[in-house]
Amino acid sequence: MKSILDYETVALVDEDDAIEIINQTLLPGKTEMIRLRTGEEIWNAIYLLQVRGAPAIGVAAGFGLYILMKHSKAETFSEFMTELKEKSDYLNSSRPTAVNLSWALKRMEAHVVKVAKERRMTEEDGAGSFDRDALITEMREESERIKAEDIDVCRRIGENGLTLIKDGFGLLTHCNAGQLATCKYGTATAPMYLAHEKGMNIRVYCDETRPLLQGARLTAFELQSAGIDTTLLCDNMSASLMKTGAIDAIFVGCDRVAANGDAANKIGTSVVATVAKRYGIPFYVCAPTSTIDINTNTGDDIKIEQRKPEEVTEMWYKERMAPEGVKVYNPAFDVTDNELITGIVTEFGVLRAPYDVSIAELFDRM
Amino acid sequence: MKSILDYETVALVDEDDAIEIINQTLLPGKTEMIRLRTGEEIWNAIYLLQVRGAPAIGVAAGFGLYILMKHSKAETFSEFMTELKEKSDYLNSSRPTAVNLSWALKRMEAHVVKVAKERRMTEEDGAGSFDRDALITEMREESERIKAEDIDVCRRIGENGLTLIKDGFGLLTHCNAGQLATCKYGTATAPMYLAHEKGMNIRVYCDETRPLLQGARLTAFELQSAGIDTTLLCDNMSASLMKTGAIDAIFVGCDRVAANGDAANKIGTSVVATVAKRYGIPFYVCAPTSTIDINTNTGDDIKIEQRKPEEVTEMWYKERMAPEGVKVYNPAFDVTDNELITGIVTEFGVLRAPYDVSIAELFDRM
Repeated sequence: MKSILDYETVALVDEDDAIEIINQTLLPGKTEMIRLRTGEEIWNAIYLLQVRGAPAIGVAAGFGLYILMKHSKAETFSEFMTELKEKSDYLNSSRPTAVNLSWALKRMEAHVVKVAKERRMTEEDGAGSFDRDALITEMREESERIKAEDIDVCRRIGENGLTLIKDGFGLLTHCNAGQLATCKYGTATAPMYLAHEKGMNIRVYCDETRPLLQGARLTAFELQSAGIDTTLLCDNMSASLMKTGAIDAIFVGCDRVAANGDAANKIGTSVVATVAKRYGIPFYVCAPTSTIDINTNTGDDIKIEQRKPEEVTEMWYKERMAPEGVKVYNPAFDVTDNELITGIVTEFGVLRAPYDVSIAELFDRM
Repeated sequence: MKSILDYETVALVDEDDAIEIINQTLLPGKTEMIRLRTGEEIWNAIYLLQVRGAPAIGVAAGFGLYILMKHSKAETFSEFMTELKEKSDYLNSSRPTAVNLSWALKRMEAHVVKVAKERRMTEEDGAGSFDRDALITEMREESERIKAEDIDVCRRIGENGLTLIKDGFGLLTHCNAGQLATCKYGTATAPMYLAHEKGMNIRVYCDETRPLLQGARLTAFELQSAGIDTTLLCDNMSASLMKTGAIDAIFVGCDRVAANGDAANKIGTSVVATVAKRYGIPFYVCAPTSTIDINTNTGDDIKIEQRKPEEVTEMWYKERMAPEGVKVYNPAFDVTDNELITGIVTEFGVLRAPYDVSIAELFDRM
């Protein structure tokens, strides 16, 4: 079996005018690479979660916008921008709540505008100043930079997280903040991959992560494929496992970190953190600084999405496993209070409590 | 829809030489009563979990042994006992680890022996002293006593638990310690049913309870059918829910309580208890005194069954949702440390910490 590290979650295949992705909806049963060429194919891949995970979606969107503009016939900068915005709006509609999707599309657009202005290609600069091919080349380079930065950030998070791991450690993670959610290494999994590459002996335990089972389907799959000693457990088994002494540290990803260090992540994360505290096990949140939102004061200010009941009552099953009409509590995320967090692992180092101070200091330096 | 309280989980239908049960493998989709007449039918019903829950299995075993002996042709006490032991061993082999199964079968056998000796029916009392019909009648009465005692114990646990509930309370439970696991009221659910019968306004939240989903399939079903305001959640959502203030008290059942109050119950119970402690929510274990084992010093002395990986990786699913060959941690139970338990609700009252003292005192009184 090939290791997950031999695959690219999202790759540009420029000579084929395509994006190549691992079709994540077929995992863990089948590792199938698919190529996306048309706007509809890219839109569907994001909508159907064939590519998922905030950083990976951002990279796919950047490559996607480039591919869709590559054969533009625009004759003027204004025509070019109209076309670009139309394609961008279309891709952005595939998952409206995915922050990295709109972030990457806006970054691509802003880069084109900036270059056009710098090189005097706009209408104001007169007819004949517009250089379509140059802008298309800039789009390719910018989309490749988005990917390269993601890989760099994950690798640096991995290196910083690695300082917290010793040979022989048992590690626990929740949901999928893995390579499959990024371009390489993942965030919570980056220290694990680097430890494994260095020949350290580690065991990783993966919460299955109900209701959508990203831990079972994705994290257990990718770690096992990389040759890491991987054990799957149900979310409610964490206390039993920690009590055995099998777990030395916990690494999770995050969706948003507030200015005080409260961290929103997949539902269940704060349960793991609470249990870890009881058993004295360090609990680390792996967070690219792009997920730290200093404009959000505390976790209470983070709005949590409630998802549809069917995810709990019938998804994955041929039959319902809950009575018809029963009410369902199904939040997508929860907030882990900063007092439960031992450290926040960023690409610039490991932040420690008090987080309001360490986060503010980091942002002052950046 | 009929309420679960209108059904009997296990009933003797003497005129039909049958036990009638709700076929729990079809819940929550279908409420089907089935009658068991032959040894094979009774064995299969227990083996296939058509009837499950320690007290309900015990009652089914008592009725079963009576039904199988009802038309005995034994001519002597010795023949009768040989036949009884053979049927008993056969039924006992259906779920060897179910303590109540062998407990009920042994109780039935012991009762027959006691009566035969008291009434001088054994071989030692001479030919002609054996009264087969009288022993069969005694078996019916003893099996009915096992059931009546179960109902009585559950009702008294309910009354004692009810003193801990106020109008408007939100309650959380884990797994199924409900009517479907007993003959009536259940243990953890007994206070809920009694509160509802008294017209109190309560909301009950049910953990789905991976991997076998007894909370989703059974507890949510039975509470909803009784007209109680019922909400289902995944096990990892408890911290998120408790943080909202929706939960005022937690009631769970138990499989075994040690002499120091440590309580073994369905996997995940100790996670709920740990989270409850963090949010200051009282956590009650409902325990018939028959589940308190004063010969077990602490929870560390309770051996926990590890179950097969397929329950986590593929049961309920048409496709595997975890990679082939991944290791799985799948304990059936966990132990909740006594310091996390606010009270142990028994049929004789609510025990409080220090439990080694309160449990010893209770057993001295009994």
